[in-house]
Amino acid sequence: MARLKAPQRREQLIAVATRLFARHGYDATTTASIAEAAGVTEPILYRHFKSKQDLFVAIVRAMSQQMLREWEERIAVIADPAKRIRAVAEAVPEHIKRLADAYHVLHGALATSQDKKVHAVLREHYAQIEAFFRKVVLDGQKSGVFRADLDPRSAAWQMILSGIGYAMITLNLGEVERPVVDQVIESIVRGWIR
Amino acid sequence: MARLKAPQRREQLIAVATRLFARHGYDATTTASIAEAAGVTEPILYRHFKSKQDLFVAIVRAMSQQMLREWEERIAVIADPAKRIRAVAEAVPEHIKRLADAYHVLHGALATSQDKKVHAVLREHYAQIEAFFRKVVLDGQKSGVFRADLDPRSAAWQMILSGIGYAMITLNLGEVERPVVDQVIESIVRGWIR
Repeated sequence: MARLKAPQRREQLIAVATRLFARHGYDATTTASIAEAAGVTEPILYRHFKSKQDLFVAIVRAMSQQMLREWEERIAVIADPAKRIRAVAEAVPEHIKRLADAYHVLHGALATSQDKKVHAVLREHYAQIEAFFRKVVLDGQKSGVFRADLDPRSAAWQMILSGIGYAMITLNLGEVERPVVDQVIESIVRGWIR
Repeated sequence: MARLKAPQRREQLIAVATRLFARHGYDATTTASIAEAAGVTEPILYRHFKSKQDLFVAIVRAMSQQMLREWEERIAVIADPAKRIRAVAEAVPEHIKRLADAYHVLHGALATSQDKKVHAVLREHYAQIEAFFRKVVLDGQKSGVFRADLDPRSAAWQMILSGIGYAMITLNLGEVERPVVDQVIESIVRGWIR
């Protein structure tokens, strides 16, 4: 395999680790097998990531970043707060399908890991999503669309909890149908408006 | 250990398997270790359960049964459909805490298992919860409390998805606080009423 520059090598290792973790589970995947699948030696892998945990942290941070960038772009062109929520929520199925491997890794770890570093980066991930929705809800309250007695933090967590449930079912048992998704989004928004 | 009658032995094996699966993961737990922890030989275990999968199926079915029995009892004494939803949803945190090991096993399997028999019993589990909430929603539409354009199946799935997300966070990252839970329930109900 051609020699890659450091940032590209890092990206490649994250992609390979995501695929292997998703396929064989986090616990069953070794750094040796990741290095081998990436066509590098283990010392090279360790130059980029000190441990398997570090790779997990990098996977989750890359997901958080990408997700929030996409959401920010999506709402930047929309003024109406209810439409903002719909626009973000309606894109979730495509987003989760596209990042299916990464979500498998994230939720597999959430469901089974007892590792503090893993827990810490998951908390960081949800804190960022919480902050995003809290702000959208607050803006919606300021403009008088969402009810004033709605707690923005709770509203944000309503989105997070539904999103986790959606990903868990869709990725593992079979896709939740589009009309159901649309109705759930509509019910959530109706519960928030004045 | 004293000799147990068949139904008690079965119950005991389910309880021991739930604890071991929750602690060490489904994959890492062997029928040999379950038999040992239960104080029986493997052939005795196999008299009750043909395989580890069969034990998993029994765990999930026992959970579904207990949950639905509790929910049916809870709503039997309540006429108002919005209050019925609140009563069931408000009891979820205590229910999940009490059955924490079983939920760990269920969600661990949902997040990571690729076993068809495991998937089948999980589908059965969610189909029963869906049927329960669908009926409560339909009754609520008949009595004019819930809006007529609400799809009962989607409403049921809104509860299931939020419930999965709630259990995943609470059991693995730290309890979702009570005021947040109460606000989420209130938002869900508000999204359904006329």
